[in-house]
Amino acid sequence: MKTLFRVLTLAGMAAAPMLLSSAAYAQFAKAEDAVAYRESVMTVMSSHFGRIGPVVKGERPYDAAQVQADVALVAILSKLPWAAFGTGTEGGRAKPDVWADNAKFKQRSDAFQENVAKLATAAQSGKLEQVRTAFGDTAASCKACHDAFRKPK
Amino acid sequence: MKTLFRVLTLAGMAAAPMLLSSAAYAQFAKAEDAVAYRESVMTVMSSHFGRIGPVVKGERPYDAAQVQADVALVAILSKLPWAAFGTGTEGGRAKPDVWADNAKFKQRSDAFQENVAKLATAAQSGKLEQVRTAFGDTAASCKACHDAFRKPK
Repeated sequence: MKTLFRVLTLAGMAAAPMLLSSAAYAQFAKAEDAVAYRESVMTVMSSHFGRIGPVVKGERPYDAAQVQADVALVAILSKLPWAAFGTGTEGGRAKPDVWADNAKFKQRSDAFQENVAKLATAAQSGKLEQVRTAFGDTAASCKACHDAFRKPK
Repeated sequence: MKTLFRVLTLAGMAAAPMLLSSAAYAQFAKAEDAVAYRESVMTVMSSHFGRIGPVVKGERPYDAAQVQADVALVAILSKLPWAAFGTGTEGGRAKPDVWADNAKFKQRSDAFQENVAKLATAAQSGKLEQVRTAFGDTAASCKACHDAFRKPK
């Protein structure tokens, strides 16, 4: 019984990101809260993703555990922003095309999340060459989405 | 061997927050990057923590898996801001006492993290009454630190 409870609890944790993305929009009282939330997630995610840049460029020593920790955070954060782009939350650095061409936005944000999942696998391999390739692919999918859907500063 | 690798990898992931807090300050090129990072972490953490408020007040139905998901995020995020309060990163909403009375700041931020750990245990219990108590204690430790160390908006 205790084991069953544990299994169910773990299943609950694994399902958490899905639960969040379906239920989270209702959690923003005001559009500006959704904007602040999604831009804050991007800031933190970008910081941890960016720490891997000097490693894959050879400017900083490769510490596999550190890269795994940063990638683990990026993977968790990569699931969060999308629930905060609901109808009526236009603003901040989001271009109107997020809503006007939402299918393309979803395709780009899905592609990004798939690249992050591959980056997580690469980080777990402990092999810098795999991390380098997956990091480059992920950076390209950040850029592809930002070019289309984010206003310049 | 494969099992050993898995165990070591898991150990690496568990050690991640400690690695981050010791190494992360070096990751901020400018003080304003550290300010943006720590305030963004607080924004996201506050959003997920805040979602539990209506549940413990009985204004929203208690969904144990959803609360566990929000608490899991709060627990991860609760470890991140402190590395971004290094010397030379004064600014934003941080009062000068963060640095002038750093021992007290550390005591308050440690107390907050201990309360979050208790909240995670309470969320895992699946018992709303335990979540309510631990949520109240955690909210009190947010406030105690903010009253002393955060400028009003």
